[in-house]
Amino acid sequence: MSVVEGDPFSFLGSAAVNPAEIVRPTSVEEVQAAVRAAAASGTPLWTVSRGKNLGYGGAAPRVPGSTLLDLSGMDRILEVDDESGYCVVEPGVTFLALDEHLRATGSRLMPSVPDIGWGSVIGNALERGFGYTPHGDHSAYMCGLEVVLADGTLLRTGMGAFPDSSAWALYKGGYGPSLDGLFVQSNLGIVTKMGVWLMPRPETISVCQIGAPSDDDLAPLIDTLRPLLLDGTIQSNVVIGNAPVIASMVSPRAAWWTGAGPMPAAAVDRITAALGIGRWNARCAFYGPPALVAARLDVLRGAVSAFDLKVTTYPGDVDPADVHPADRAQLGIPSTDLIRMAEWRGGTPAHTDFSLVCPPTGRDAVRQKELIERKVEAHGFDYAGGFTLNPRHAIALALVSFDRDDPAEAAAVAALFPELIADAAAAGYAPYRAHVAYMDLIADRYDAYDSAHRHTVERIKDALDPAGVLSPGKQGVWPAGHRSTRGAVPR
Amino acid sequence: MSVVEGDPFSFLGSAAVNPAEIVRPTSVEEVQAAVRAAAASGTPLWTVSRGKNLGYGGAAPRVPGSTLLDLSGMDRILEVDDESGYCVVEPGVTFLALDEHLRATGSRLMPSVPDIGWGSVIGNALERGFGYTPHGDHSAYMCGLEVVLADGTLLRTGMGAFPDSSAWALYKGGYGPSLDGLFVQSNLGIVTKMGVWLMPRPETISVCQIGAPSDDDLAPLIDTLRPLLLDGTIQSNVVIGNAPVIASMVSPRAAWWTGAGPMPAAAVDRITAALGIGRWNARCAFYGPPALVAARLDVLRGAVSAFDLKVTTYPGDVDPADVHPADRAQLGIPSTDLIRMAEWRGGTPAHTDFSLVCPPTGRDAVRQKELIERKVEAHGFDYAGGFTLNPRHAIALALVSFDRDDPAEAAAVAALFPELIADAAAAGYAPYRAHVAYMDLIADRYDAYDSAHRHTVERIKDALDPAGVLSPGKQGVWPAGHRSTRGAVPR
Repeated sequence: MSVVEGDPFSFLGSAAVNPAEIVRPTSVEEVQAAVRAAAASGTPLWTVSRGKNLGYGGAAPRVPGSTLLDLSGMDRILEVDDESGYCVVEPGVTFLALDEHLRATGSRLMPSVPDIGWGSVIGNALERGFGYTPHGDHSAYMCGLEVVLADGTLLRTGMGAFPDSSAWALYKGGYGPSLDGLFVQSNLGIVTKMGVWLMPRPETISVCQIGAPSDDDLAPLIDTLRPLLLDGTIQSNVVIGNAPVIASMVSPRAAWWTGAGPMPAAAVDRITAALGIGRWNARCAFYGPPALVAARLDVLRGAVSAFDLKVTTYPGDVDPADVHPADRAQLGIPSTDLIRMAEWRGGTPAHTDFSLVCPPTGRDAVRQKELIERKVEAHGFDYAGGFTLNPRHAIALALVSFDRDDPAEAAAVAALFPELIADAAAAGYAPYRAHVAYMDLIADRYDAYDSAHRHTVERIKDALDPAGVLSPGKQGVWPAGHRSTRGAVPR
Repeated sequence: MSVVEGDPFSFLGSAAVNPAEIVRPTSVEEVQAAVRAAAASGTPLWTVSRGKNLGYGGAAPRVPGSTLLDLSGMDRILEVDDESGYCVVEPGVTFLALDEHLRATGSRLMPSVPDIGWGSVIGNALERGFGYTPHGDHSAYMCGLEVVLADGTLLRTGMGAFPDSSAWALYKGGYGPSLDGLFVQSNLGIVTKMGVWLMPRPETISVCQIGAPSDDDLAPLIDTLRPLLLDGTIQSNVVIGNAPVIASMVSPRAAWWTGAGPMPAAAVDRITAALGIGRWNARCAFYGPPALVAARLDVLRGAVSAFDLKVTTYPGDVDPADVHPADRAQLGIPSTDLIRMAEWRGGTPAHTDFSLVCPPTGRDAVRQKELIERKVEAHGFDYAGGFTLNPRHAIALALVSFDRDDPAEAAAVAALFPELIADAAAAGYAPYRAHVAYMDLIADRYDAYDSAHRHTVERIKDALDPAGVLSPGKQGVWPAGHRSTRGAVPR
């Protein structure tokens, strides 16, 4: 039996890192028992909430012989509070399930969802995933964690340290140091409950699509939108995609180009003409009472007059069936449609993602676009990607879809990513997230001040998990006993 | 020489806890040297940024014989970035200095400031202090810390772990676990630099004052305003004060009542009549382009029609001299006017604050008001206080001003606070912040799951500061060697 879908390392030409065993607890007590057993036996536990982090390795553990601790069976929605706008969930709760629950119970709250809704609400927040509503920065909207430590200790963070606090999911701070951040992209504990802030479903949502006709419009587009994000006129992030990435959401590559090598400009022109989109396409949304949404829209209209603006307005309680598929993310409606993006090149669909942090400026975006495009095309892939623009940072995203069963493509992907990381580092940028196979490679770049950050996390790791059994190698953090194997990709 | 103003423990009838020595570094290297010397000698270091946290103990260390590490000499503003909206500062930078710098350099950014502007920007954020603009939750707007650990290790958090990252003060996440929260209300390290997000100065700011005539209006007032905070119509927090606390900002108590015991209702009526205020008074502000501010105001007007609403509108670049003193906090203009609140009862001014976290509902606010009022009045003080209402939590504040040289008043304050903490805990509430003298008393209430939170912080403390020299006892966190003295108030 395998919960690892396919073999996330096969593109590296290596053996699969499938877990030796799978444990599926249904309660906190069973999680505590599992960590105690792991510490006693010395067998590493690799924890996944639902294991759907596919572009980054899915449920594959870093260390061969690990036991997979699969939390998908802990799938209760424990509380929904319409009055103060939060829910408390277990790790197995998916975005699809949360949305269904809120609708079925008549809640006035709406979730923020990532591109694909089958993943875990907790897992996504802990990996610093994001959605496209005003609550799109998912790790910023968590409030209150319950965590099982490596020795079985049960810990509640923030106000949860006060017995039966009514403010556990309401006030992040608590008393004394905040521990929440320790459990993000982490192997320091296992999160078994999380408070998640949800926004009230607004009266109106207007989704805006801004098309820019030329490749050269990237910088002006970003520099036009950033001030509106910074002053709060735009309430969500702005997701910016080039024509190929938009095409991959609705069609296979073969519909536009069947030749070898990267898609030529003429094929991209066919995409923009046929789909009625720009070379760059930005999406954001406004939320609130109609008069406030209209006032925001007026500001946007004045700012983007050089571009093509399309606005679609929905009542906040619109039936999901009446929403255009492209607008769902801004409305917090989960779906699995975008799985098809991995089918872009045909064959056995696989994809891996590259996510680079950068300042939210046009000049940084252009530098990142050029370095990613150059490298991706050099390996024969299309540059299908873009940016998620936030008030103070952008994430440059490249989605590399490939045929896992094509040895040449798999080899090209395996060669591409280390080069991308090196090129980005040379230009002063770093990814915030990593495929399991590249966790050390990226961690090695975060080496300022003699790698003080990593060494500090390692000191905490050794203090909290002396046996070193919780997800060794996660994000490049290894327990004392494994540090000599650091950096070796499993083969 | 003493930087401890007066004796913050004298009201407890105990000896002063003045530091044995004071070290004032002017560079990170000097901080590193100081911690290494402390570790070598075993002498505790008690770190303050400026030591102005007066209602909570000022610069007084918890342990007698400590060396005070006073960071006020590290007062450089290292960077201001108008384009992306942030600054990077050292611990000695005050709100007054930051405001002056931004104005002198023609920056388009504005700070968020607490009630009194002489304190440290870094210190306030690290103590979870707050201001009254959209960036009022100061710890939420820090991004990127530089920290000296107990062994002299220099650490940069978040993207700062990537060498020369251009996104250190822009993206909070970084790669792997987030360490920032560890250094909040903490003795795990010494923060020597911080990125702080600043908002662009808006075109227009409208300050709203909402007066409610009756004591019974507290619950309806809060329940009317909470939905507008939750849906983002109101961009700042709402600060709600009763008539005595408003009076204490502009007058001595003797102007209204000179009798013994708590001020009677007739005196409070004189305050409301003379100052033209309500029994409860809420303040918030709207920020942005005039049309958007007007649309927000329309929503507020519709919601608070049962109360008295006064609106004052300023251009964002108004000259501070033209701003009503009561509106400064909402405009991010620092001042020291409110120092006079401590002079309420005359004599040698002293005050101490009680800050309770609660859900943002009318029923919770009324319960807190009643328990605080009952207890404060039982000890002969006026209930001068209110609430800071945020989208998902409120902080109930009681400001107890007293004459430090009046032995009866000092004894009453010493008796009052432990009782307040006990009463609040019995009702299910806890403070988020503490006077140095009560840090253990409050920490003891955060004892869920066999005090798992405190014990986890202690394990991290022992790993990062094995000699136990950084601010022992801070927020009730003691190093291994001092844990037996936990809970003993210094005498």
